[in-house]
Amino acid sequence: MTTARVVFMPSGKRGDFALGTPVLDAARSLGVDIDSVCGGRALCGRCQVQCMSGEFPKHGIRSSTDHLSSKSDTEKHYGPRGKRLLADDRRLSCQARIEGSVVIDVPSTSQVHRQVVRKSADNRKITLDAAVRIHYVRVEEADMHEPVGDLQRLNNALEREWGLTALDCDLTVLQSLQRALREGDWRVSVVVHSQKRIIAVWPGFKAAIYGVAVDVGSTTVAAHLVDLTSGDIVGSEGLMNPQIRYGEDLMSRVSYVMMHPEGAAEMTEAIRLGLNELIDQLVAAHESVTAVDILELTVVGNPIMHHLLLGIDPVELGGAPFALATDAALELKATELDLAVNPGARVYMLPCIAGHVGADSAAVVLSESPQESDELTLLIDLGTNAEIVLGDRSRLLACSSPTGPAFEGAQISCGQRAAPGAIERVRIDPDTLEPRFQVIGSELWSDNAKFSDSIASSGVTGICGSGIIEVVAEMFLAGIITEDGVINGSLAAQSRRVEADQRTWSYVLYDGDIKITVTQNDVRQIQLAKAALHAGVSLLMDHYGSRDVKRIRLAGAFGSHIDVKHAMVLGLIPDCELSQVASAGNAAGMGALIALLNQESRRLIESVVKRIEKIETAIEPKFQEYFVDAMAIPNKSDPYDKLFSEVERPRERAAPPASETGSRRRRRKQPRT
Amino acid sequence: MTTARVVFMPSGKRGDFALGTPVLDAARSLGVDIDSVCGGRALCGRCQVQCMSGEFPKHGIRSSTDHLSSKSDTEKHYGPRGKRLLADDRRLSCQARIEGSVVIDVPSTSQVHRQVVRKSADNRKITLDAAVRIHYVRVEEADMHEPVGDLQRLNNALEREWGLTALDCDLTVLQSLQRALREGDWRVSVVVHSQKRIIAVWPGFKAAIYGVAVDVGSTTVAAHLVDLTSGDIVGSEGLMNPQIRYGEDLMSRVSYVMMHPEGAAEMTEAIRLGLNELIDQLVAAHESVTAVDILELTVVGNPIMHHLLLGIDPVELGGAPFALATDAALELKATELDLAVNPGARVYMLPCIAGHVGADSAAVVLSESPQESDELTLLIDLGTNAEIVLGDRSRLLACSSPTGPAFEGAQISCGQRAAPGAIERVRIDPDTLEPRFQVIGSELWSDNAKFSDSIASSGVTGICGSGIIEVVAEMFLAGIITEDGVINGSLAAQSRRVEADQRTWSYVLYDGDIKITVTQNDVRQIQLAKAALHAGVSLLMDHYGSRDVKRIRLAGAFGSHIDVKHAMVLGLIPDCELSQVASAGNAAGMGALIALLNQESRRLIESVVKRIEKIETAIEPKFQEYFVDAMAIPNKSDPYDKLFSEVERPRERAAPPASETGSRRRRRKQPRT
Repeated sequence: MTTARVVFMPSGKRGDFALGTPVLDAARSLGVDIDSVCGGRALCGRCQVQCMSGEFPKHGIRSSTDHLSSKSDTEKHYGPRGKRLLADDRRLSCQARIEGSVVIDVPSTSQVHRQVVRKSADNRKITLDAAVRIHYVRVEEADMHEPVGDLQRLNNALEREWGLTALDCDLTVLQSLQRALREGDWRVSVVVHSQKRIIAVWPGFKAAIYGVAVDVGSTTVAAHLVDLTSGDIVGSEGLMNPQIRYGEDLMSRVSYVMMHPEGAAEMTEAIRLGLNELIDQLVAAHESVTAVDILELTVVGNPIMHHLLLGIDPVELGGAPFALATDAALELKATELDLAVNPGARVYMLPCIAGHVGADSAAVVLSESPQESDELTLLIDLGTNAEIVLGDRSRLLACSSPTGPAFEGAQISCGQRAAPGAIERVRIDPDTLEPRFQVIGSELWSDNAKFSDSIASSGVTGICGSGIIEVVAEMFLAGIITEDGVINGSLAAQSRRVEADQRTWSYVLYDGDIKITVTQNDVRQIQLAKAALHAGVSLLMDHYGSRDVKRIRLAGAFGSHIDVKHAMVLGLIPDCELSQVASAGNAAGMGALIALLNQESRRLIESVVKRIEKIETAIEPKFQEYFVDAMAIPNKSDPYDKLFSEVERPRERAAPPASETGSRRRRRKQPRT
Repeated sequence: MTTARVVFMPSGKRGDFALGTPVLDAARSLGVDIDSVCGGRALCGRCQVQCMSGEFPKHGIRSSTDHLSSKSDTEKHYGPRGKRLLADDRRLSCQARIEGSVVIDVPSTSQVHRQVVRKSADNRKITLDAAVRIHYVRVEEADMHEPVGDLQRLNNALEREWGLTALDCDLTVLQSLQRALREGDWRVSVVVHSQKRIIAVWPGFKAAIYGVAVDVGSTTVAAHLVDLTSGDIVGSEGLMNPQIRYGEDLMSRVSYVMMHPEGAAEMTEAIRLGLNELIDQLVAAHESVTAVDILELTVVGNPIMHHLLLGIDPVELGGAPFALATDAALELKATELDLAVNPGARVYMLPCIAGHVGADSAAVVLSESPQESDELTLLIDLGTNAEIVLGDRSRLLACSSPTGPAFEGAQISCGQRAAPGAIERVRIDPDTLEPRFQVIGSELWSDNAKFSDSIASSGVTGICGSGIIEVVAEMFLAGIITEDGVINGSLAAQSRRVEADQRTWSYVLYDGDIKITVTQNDVRQIQLAKAALHAGVSLLMDHYGSRDVKRIRLAGAFGSHIDVKHAMVLGLIPDCELSQVASAGNAAGMGALIALLNQESRRLIESVVKRIEKIETAIEPKFQEYFVDAMAIPNKSDPYDKLFSEVERPRERAAPPASETGSRRRRRKQPRT
């Protein structure tokens, strides 16, 4: 017998091969997905397989490890030089030769297009298929008998060994190619982008290249460093967006641009320097990685962050008609953005959806995939503008709504950015009206004896966005504010927590070294913000033709800290089963990661974004109507039956005075100071 | 009758159109080639046509200028603002409307793909079809009801008005697009490269863009500035290659690189600065042109110039196997070469043919088109290496031959670069052996009474390459040297021009303030150089299978100064009818110009270069044999029948002594000093 049968698991692909055929060659001829960076030269250790022993009646063969050639010296001593170890029961498929019938198991870690587990709640998987890949090749030596250029010889090798044809080549590669070929003794590792273009070259064998997925938030810039050959996230870092010195929220930054001729250029430089700092942080944490090993970045951000990073003046986004310079995805060289990574590195920026619905929202869509679901899904990314996407498999709609910066703690009397010392969780006892709270930096509630010690370094400094939502919702549940948002001054008689504040009333949340109160105006600001958000959602529901949202995901740093019950009590989000409402974590960052690891996902999100119906709230006559309706808590037209089947209804109290009367009463009851 | 017949000349295309149809629209619907930059808005003046009057029986119509709408105000006052004048009998086809049957003549200057006359001897024409084109478009204003990006609106306009689809866009354009659209009141002029990518944008109407065709020679860098919308050469400039300070000839520059670690980078910077200086010169001469108006450059040069400009260390070209980094054509951004032109400008570099046969030779092929001829053509570009191409429609072959720098005046005792003061023309009276000569900088021969005055500023300083060829050839024709190249010392007896020089003899060409002689060694150097060249040509003839060359073109600065008769007398070029031998002028520069004006020519030369059979002389056993043969004058195996049917045969003299004897005799005859 000169051939033997080989069956590959889990695919079940099989074939008969001449004895002596390397397992890797057999796999390739059957189209079995086995990874290899070194092209079968026992350098990369990625092609590991396991031979299964026993009878396989279905395939009519008996498989045995003896039916493979015995371990080569390379396999016996594998590991010390490279980083990948070869377990005793594993073989390198490029070394093991077929000597009899075998069933070969290809472990998932050896598959080219293996699944990478997402570190998110729903554990969905990403198929590893990066746009940049590294290939080790042996190039024919330059020879006067075959007078062609070194690049052409490299291209021939890439075609022969990797099936890559008609590749273009960066000038920076051409500049170093001849030296690399000779230093590597005509063996080089080549990075190819999108199967189209050679973007980097190293002499000899190089095991791994890296990518960075970046979410440029207006407050925080976050990035993952990823090994593109394995799909592993090897590090994650974040830093404050250095543009904060030009304005805390987006609109103040746009104002800065309008007032300063060089403002946009300054902020472009600031964010680019910031990204380089972040890249430094990422590689500093990993001895084996340098910035030159980074070959691709994917970037998401809201339209203003997106434009500023690109060096586009965002002034048009500051006023109607809110025109984007482009809504298409972009593929750039990292050098065009002054990024200090490999000179051949590319940057992929996800498409923006509309003037206020950015590449960050596109990334959230990519991460949450509402277009693949039969259930009506609502995605909300809260910031100075809420970016809202609603839809399912049949249609997707998007809009933004001008919530203003209240959710970010701005325009709130004791508001502040989420930072140590900020109150982020609040509970109010409906009987005593006494509050307890948590601050960022401590796990303890304020009624714990050790609370003061635990916050000694920061103290209590203010209320952040999630705190303000909780305290207003708790005030409503405790009956301190009415459905109209009026603080019930009559309660001052029974609790020192309700106190007069000029012509209105306030709720005293904290009265220590500083005094933190929730004023009537604070409640109004939250009402305005949540009304804007709800009006935007209502408009999308109108256009979609259903209000029956089955699934809600809150994205962004703020969205991941918000308590969904309190958000719903306020009417911030529409009625929905509480179990179906969740934070999407950093869904924008996850979308950037997906785009980094899987090139097909780029075409997917580009086509999905084109299909999204863009609704401009500013020109929708019903927006104002919905807005007024939604000033009430939760809001006027919606009974929130689902919510209140799970949550205790607000404490019923003596009907508070009507607004007019209320202010008169308040004036009367105002204590003399 | 509501339609009328329109016939366009010279194409003869015809159709019936509704009365009132603009002539331009009628032309377009028939596919008649009428130019327009402004898209029919009476701004560019490129769509001029002429209405022919009279009976046209063939078409069955009577044509009259009355059958067009009367001149619009725009046409009546055309000219002062724009630069194009509208003659009385001309109409703008975008303004004139059809009101009856007409025959319309489209003058060649109004055709998009019009022919541009080449300023070269053979007057062949180039069809204008530049890779970069400027388009004036009106873009829909940004509108909240249609929330798409400004770029997408621009792309829609380009598709609607110009049929351009799926265009990419440079980041630099995106950065200025929004401002340009608003400054131009939503009318912009857009430059599109290869129908694929937007590379520049201006607010409003812009009439012209420019390109530069560059020939980077090792001695001289020459460039043409071209109006890409008209095909007109608006200026030509040249400068010394600033790399000359690193070495006069190519090999000394490669040596410099080998000796100095930063040598290649220094020379790259030098040539890039030089190109910027040249560009400055070109635009300085034209008030209406600035560097930002330059959108494309085409560049040719020998492999070492090519690599150094690209920032590729040319060290591999300095020794076997003479490996090019790449032999493919390159398309780059001008910024990658640090060129101070429009930031979106592109650079096209023609392909190199082989290690010593560069993009300059490819450009010569493009200019001379041997691949389109049935006659066997020989193209020679002389320098430190001769780059040789031989062939016809059926095949093309190329090689380079190591002639050394003798033809450039180096290694010649009184040799110098072609510059004022250098002897470039020589005649020797075969009876008296007295010479007369011309020097660069004067039109007069040295036997003219006013000669001394005419060269007062330079004097006589040496012999340049073309001078050395003439003097050696004249020495041979006068019988001063033998077929073997030996200076016949016996002539010292009859002429003071032949004098002893150590152990050999010299010919005294000039004996004024300095003495200029042609030594035996000088003759040997020319023999060596011409033997190398002839051996290369012979090899190509062998491979081709015929020695019957019908047409010879000498390219390059040197080739255009050489006297073909003298070159043939020496056996520098093979036997051929003298009338079929000519200088190709700056054929390399012409090739660069063709590639700039006609994008199809790029695909053409790329495919021709791939087809060229590359012969490496260093590994051809017969090269040495041919070389030895060709040391004789003209050379041993070829009687040069065609030449000597037109040229008087060399003066027969008493058989000179055999070499051995000769040196003995010379020693004997050597005058005591």
